[in-house]
Amino acid sequence: MDQERAKRPGGRSARVYAAVHQAVTELVAERGYGNFAVGDVAARAGVADTSIYRRWGSLEKLLSDVALARLAARSPMPDTGSLAGDLHAYALNVAREITGPDGLAILHLTIALSSQGTEGLQTRDEFLAERARLVETMLDRARERGENPPDALGVLDHIMAPMYIRVLFGIGPLTAEYVDGLVDRLLATDRSQLRS
Amino acid sequence: MDQERAKRPGGRSARVYAAVHQAVTELVAERGYGNFAVGDVAARAGVADTSIYRRWGSLEKLLSDVALARLAARSPMPDTGSLAGDLHAYALNVAREITGPDGLAILHLTIALSSQGTEGLQTRDEFLAERARLVETMLDRARERGENPPDALGVLDHIMAPMYIRVLFGIGPLTAEYVDGLVDRLLATDRSQLRS
Repeated sequence: MDQERAKRPGGRSARVYAAVHQAVTELVAERGYGNFAVGDVAARAGVADTSIYRRWGSLEKLLSDVALARLAARSPMPDTGSLAGDLHAYALNVAREITGPDGLAILHLTIALSSQGTEGLQTRDEFLAERARLVETMLDRARERGENPPDALGVLDHIMAPMYIRVLFGIGPLTAEYVDGLVDRLLATDRSQLRS
Repeated sequence: MDQERAKRPGGRSARVYAAVHQAVTELVAERGYGNFAVGDVAARAGVADTSIYRRWGSLEKLLSDVALARLAARSPMPDTGSLAGDLHAYALNVAREITGPDGLAILHLTIALSSQGTEGLQTRDEFLAERARLVETMLDRARERGENPPDALGVLDHIMAPMYIRVLFGIGPLTAEYVDGLVDRLLATDRSQLRS
């Protein structure tokens, strides 16, 4: 699809888009959020400042756009045929993403959206609603199979949140054993609550 | 103690310190991390830019100093006589802090430290080590009473992390019922793992 776009009249526009997004991701990773300006992005992407202002309007809007695009590109929800299988695969995917080369930068960008006024909050909420919808789909499939899945907020609280906070606080690697343990623990707690 | 300091020769210095810290906290809350300069802090605190540079050296060092001071001022660990009592009181304290007027600003500041190079990472790691030590003390007391406490990382993963992420993502209020539920769930899972 990228090749197709490059051949069409929109080719230059698509190349600028990709170069600018890549430049932002690198600058967030190198300098941290808030420590660079539109001029730095333009220089690294090899485009004029005015191209960025014309297309995005402001640094804040550009940052929101990059965060949303990166987060939307995340791997699709797994469909393994069982709740445990789906949750294990999903948790491992997320762990890989947030510990990958741009992982911390993307996490910082997502969280920084909350302090960027209405524009940022809207981007963040759109992203969260979309992720919640995808997780719900996975949990609905489990329910249809007669399994008793946790709710989406349980998945956020006990699988995603610990991984996000460990990466943000720089605590240890997210080993497969640790990630699998989070999933097993959530499933076990739900079973033990059903028993009681 | 503040009164005592104000009377001593260091009085002016203490007032500058307090005014500058307050200005940073307000600016983080209003504009978000990264969207203000030393000049903005100086103007709001009613001091000269040079006073800030002389004392802190750079905006980054000032931000680290504020984050560390605010986080260190958090309420002491509760000592209620039981593990469940301590964990419930501690979790409710943290929930109150991070949902208070400066709570989100302080959380953003802590997380932003990770993208501020060595200085920021050192501040963050000092803070985390200090918090871990305090939680360990609470868990040690439980162990001495013959209780079976979770480890400190379990408290981070299943009580702190869900609250932090919900505040950072702007998901619902942290009701007492929700916070108590996180503690009960952690204690129940640990008991059920002992049984199996």
